[in-house]
Amino acid sequence: MRDPASFAGLIIREKDPENLEFPFSSLNSFVTPNEQFFIRSHFAVPKLNPRSWRLKIEGLVDRPCQIDYNDLLRLPSRSVTTTLECAGNSRIFLTPKVGGLQWGLGAVGNAEWTGVPLAAVLERAGVHAGTVEVVLQGGDAGEIKKEPQSPGKIHYARSLPLEKALRSEVILAYQMNGAQLPMSHGFPVRAVVPGWYGMASVKWLTRIVVTDRVFRGYFQTSDYAYWDQPEGLPIQLLPVAEVEVKAQIARPALHEVVRANSVYRMHGAAWAGESEVTKVEVSTNGGRMWKPAEFLGAASRYAWRLWEYTWHTPSRVGRYTVMARASDARGRVQPMHRDPHRGTYMISHVQPIEVEVQESAPPPPTDRYTI
Amino acid sequence: MRDPASFAGLIIREKDPENLEFPFSSLNSFVTPNEQFFIRSHFAVPKLNPRSWRLKIEGLVDRPCQIDYNDLLRLPSRSVTTTLECAGNSRIFLTPKVGGLQWGLGAVGNAEWTGVPLAAVLERAGVHAGTVEVVLQGGDAGEIKKEPQSPGKIHYARSLPLEKALRSEVILAYQMNGAQLPMSHGFPVRAVVPGWYGMASVKWLTRIVVTDRVFRGYFQTSDYAYWDQPEGLPIQLLPVAEVEVKAQIARPALHEVVRANSVYRMHGAAWAGESEVTKVEVSTNGGRMWKPAEFLGAASRYAWRLWEYTWHTPSRVGRYTVMARASDARGRVQPMHRDPHRGTYMISHVQPIEVEVQESAPPPPTDRYTI
Repeated sequence: MRDPASFAGLIIREKDPENLEFPFSSLNSFVTPNEQFFIRSHFAVPKLNPRSWRLKIEGLVDRPCQIDYNDLLRLPSRSVTTTLECAGNSRIFLTPKVGGLQWGLGAVGNAEWTGVPLAAVLERAGVHAGTVEVVLQGGDAGEIKKEPQSPGKIHYARSLPLEKALRSEVILAYQMNGAQLPMSHGFPVRAVVPGWYGMASVKWLTRIVVTDRVFRGYFQTSDYAYWDQPEGLPIQLLPVAEVEVKAQIARPALHEVVRANSVYRMHGAAWAGESEVTKVEVSTNGGRMWKPAEFLGAASRYAWRLWEYTWHTPSRVGRYTVMARASDARGRVQPMHRDPHRGTYMISHVQPIEVEVQESAPPPPTDRYTI
Repeated sequence: MRDPASFAGLIIREKDPENLEFPFSSLNSFVTPNEQFFIRSHFAVPKLNPRSWRLKIEGLVDRPCQIDYNDLLRLPSRSVTTTLECAGNSRIFLTPKVGGLQWGLGAVGNAEWTGVPLAAVLERAGVHAGTVEVVLQGGDAGEIKKEPQSPGKIHYARSLPLEKALRSEVILAYQMNGAQLPMSHGFPVRAVVPGWYGMASVKWLTRIVVTDRVFRGYFQTSDYAYWDQPEGLPIQLLPVAEVEVKAQIARPALHEVVRANSVYRMHGAAWAGESEVTKVEVSTNGGRMWKPAEFLGAASRYAWRLWEYTWHTPSRVGRYTVMARASDARGRVQPMHRDPHRGTYMISHVQPIEVEVQESAPPPPTDRYTI
């Protein structure tokens, strides 16, 4: 199905199951090529045959049904370009260290996904009044070995509140950047939930269950949860959901050697969940002064915005700290400090990048973005 | 406040915070004396002064209010005799070993609690239509050090569905067996939630919050949860709630030496959550034959039933396995085998007790129960 060589550029964070990271310093295009897109797997990749694959829609629906692959391909489709970021992206920067995969900057990518709106499938099945959530279950299954240990194998599953499930951007995707969905990205069909962290975009989708209760699956109670205290209630562990506003620097990379007294093109990407990035600011002196970066494309919901900044590097050699921070249309500004309520997820605070300014340095990359 | 010597008979499972177990083989009364009642603490015991103590009632209520200790004592009270069992009772018998406090048989006790029905307090505050749950918060707080690590100190809290919260047996107790509630048992006021595992009976109660959402506190998502798959939904981690049906043997104790060819009084207790124990059966040959035990009192909801069985011990010396199992009015029968869905909680499967039958043995205890 896939050529192992095609993933050659990815950083292995875990080999089995497959957890591979995009080398973010190589960012040079608006759309991340399929073979460069990060891979997050909780269990072994299930080998699903599109001929026998069925998507069951059940629970509180008038017409429980099964959709096969050809049925799905015949339904009206739409494409949505969206950034998917793993909820644990940037975890390696947390101090003190926490458990979980030690992602750097590259558990994020941006692709054009094509498929059938989840709303259309739900409408066909006829969702009952009183529905609260829609549970998406993947064909991938395995054992949870840390506590709470699972009773044998469990399937990956996540729920969406009905309101989000019915939004037009949420699709059951069978194409990624115009090609058939790759095996590691959920072949034959995955959910794509723009604006939410990647854990909501259930891969290898096989089952949709409509329910009038809040779903309490493992991946939204014990795992993929963060601390919050809404509406004066005692503190809770809520399911990780919407993506935070965040800018990341592709170049300079951490500890990169930069030539003194030169013109250096800093660049990166920024995203804002269900909102739009309106501003990226850059600091090249450890956060004392901030200057606006320039965007390389218009704002659009769900997709990241590439940005660049022309840095006139200092004449004095030494160690310098560069940073970037994003703001969005909702007024959210990327925070400078880590909020411990977020546990091991939603790591969006500004990451200082230390660079070495030296008399001579390798020439900066001349690539321009492919937009 | 308390004399450490008064807890001399309890088994220390953890010293700080205080987690002490009743030596179940010494069971000899229907009501467990206060100083013999097991203690389960998540955090250090808070020192609450009844003069400054207030119980806040807030959230979706018409009249948010604070009740002080004297107010509460003036409200109409009721007494309820109920068994409280820790959800982790008997954990030491699980194989393979699991994390958590290694309780034997004695994280259970039966007491008469006196206080004000929670329903009366909720009625006074005026609960809004659409209320789903009532959250009970304790004055005890501390840090969760394992993942998910808490952001600083959090308070102990648990919720009840409104339907359970309004049941007449659920009380805010200020007396235990006719005495002022001891410090370690929640002084000045604790919830007592008959029929549910002990974690619902929030101690050192300071705050009640009425809400239209399902509460997802730490102690009912990551902790005190079990695996279940209701209504065809993918598997979930649900909050531990109602107590399972269970009989425990007090004597013979594990590995007790019993005299051959003698008359031995086996005895113990059985309970059934919100139901009533209707039958206890005993096997003295490893489960091949079961014979009915006799009850020492009438069935009553919420309180355990003491039982005894006259065992004519075998003439052949050697190792024998004795067991007891309970049934309840709802038709539940205590299972023979552990269900792995229950994780580290709700440990109610039949426990085989191995005893040594020998030619001579210490005389069996002659105590009769105090009922």
